[in-house]
Amino acid sequence: MGIRITPSILNSDVSNLRGELDRIATADWAHIDVMDNHFVPNLTWGLPVVEAILPVSPIPLDIHLMIEDPDRWAPAYAEAGAQSVTFHAEAASAPIRLARELRRLGSRSAMALKPTTDLEPFLPVLPELDMLLVMTVEPGFGGQSFIEPMLEKIRRARSVIDERDLDIWIQVDGGIKPETIERAAEAGADTFVAGTAVFRADDPAAAIAHLRELGEAAHARC
Amino acid sequence: MGIRITPSILNSDVSNLRGELDRIATADWAHIDVMDNHFVPNLTWGLPVVEAILPVSPIPLDIHLMIEDPDRWAPAYAEAGAQSVTFHAEAASAPIRLARELRRLGSRSAMALKPTTDLEPFLPVLPELDMLLVMTVEPGFGGQSFIEPMLEKIRRARSVIDERDLDIWIQVDGGIKPETIERAAEAGADTFVAGTAVFRADDPAAAIAHLRELGEAAHARC
Repeated sequence: MGIRITPSILNSDVSNLRGELDRIATADWAHIDVMDNHFVPNLTWGLPVVEAILPVSPIPLDIHLMIEDPDRWAPAYAEAGAQSVTFHAEAASAPIRLARELRRLGSRSAMALKPTTDLEPFLPVLPELDMLLVMTVEPGFGGQSFIEPMLEKIRRARSVIDERDLDIWIQVDGGIKPETIERAAEAGADTFVAGTAVFRADDPAAAIAHLRELGEAAHARC
Repeated sequence: MGIRITPSILNSDVSNLRGELDRIATADWAHIDVMDNHFVPNLTWGLPVVEAILPVSPIPLDIHLMIEDPDRWAPAYAEAGAQSVTFHAEAASAPIRLARELRRLGSRSAMALKPTTDLEPFLPVLPELDMLLVMTVEPGFGGQSFIEPMLEKIRRARSVIDERDLDIWIQVDGGIKPETIERAAEAGADTFVAGTAVFRADDPAAAIAHLRELGEAAHARC
């Protein structure tokens, strides 16, 4: 099982997104936090920014929609060419229909769970997903610390996915750095959002390589 | 009375905002369209982008908040150092209190009216404002055409402002280009948002100079 590092541009220099994306060209995907002031108490950026960076990004974009009514808004990101689109389970009216629609439009489909959202009611969505995002902080801002009890949710997701022989990545987002990535990987996560740990590093490529190495070593041990 | 050209970055290359702001360094202000998927059916960018471009912009920023609940969100833009913050009359719960708060935080205060919003109920807000924005298209997207009946609203605003000897700029936003700027200026507008007319031009500085010249000539005629 491979390990993927997906740095979030939330803590990058957003006056020069093209340059910042080039700085993380050795990462697997770039994680784009879309927030609407309603689903979360912050407003970051939306479709016009995604449309502008898609053609210039050296790596594919993983769009994390922290917005209300993703049933209405998410398909446009897939239509624009985003390689992966994640909606929140709590915000979607018809998550199975939406996940299918994203795949039909050529994107990978993904669903996110806030820290206090239980996985169990959403198990029927899994066959429609390419990735499950387990939030390890409350969504809305960068720089928060990892919520330890989420390890149990990651373990449960990994066990269900393996049991049913599904091909679904498990992404974690929030507080991921060298001190936490091993525990998340041991619990079963394989795709890691990192913000400050990458963009505040002197050498983002070295930070990405270090995180990947730690994640791979943890997987090898399990 | 001076003429101000305030290009909107909505139609710029947003993967390189710093470079795009440099291309319009001869403009008076840069107009930043903040949209939240709720007040208007589009999501552009918010506070993290404004915070990133404020220190690198060669000209001051004019923040146009097309968002719900500006009473809650607008002050943070003034606190971040934005030189002008515009909220929508239709979205504010307490526009007079909000306008005063923006000034107290060191920003110019401004209020916008959608095309179908009448000026009359909002006349008591005028003494708290540094700018009134008369929308000449429905807010939400660039590239729309100028709504002619808005000229009457601009004339009415100009007449009230002059009568009461208030020092308030009148900004127009939507469909402003060489063919429309003169009529808007003759009606009494002095501050002009232009999007495609500037950023789609081969030479943005020349487009800005041309618009300014046409606006000044129209004012001189009146």
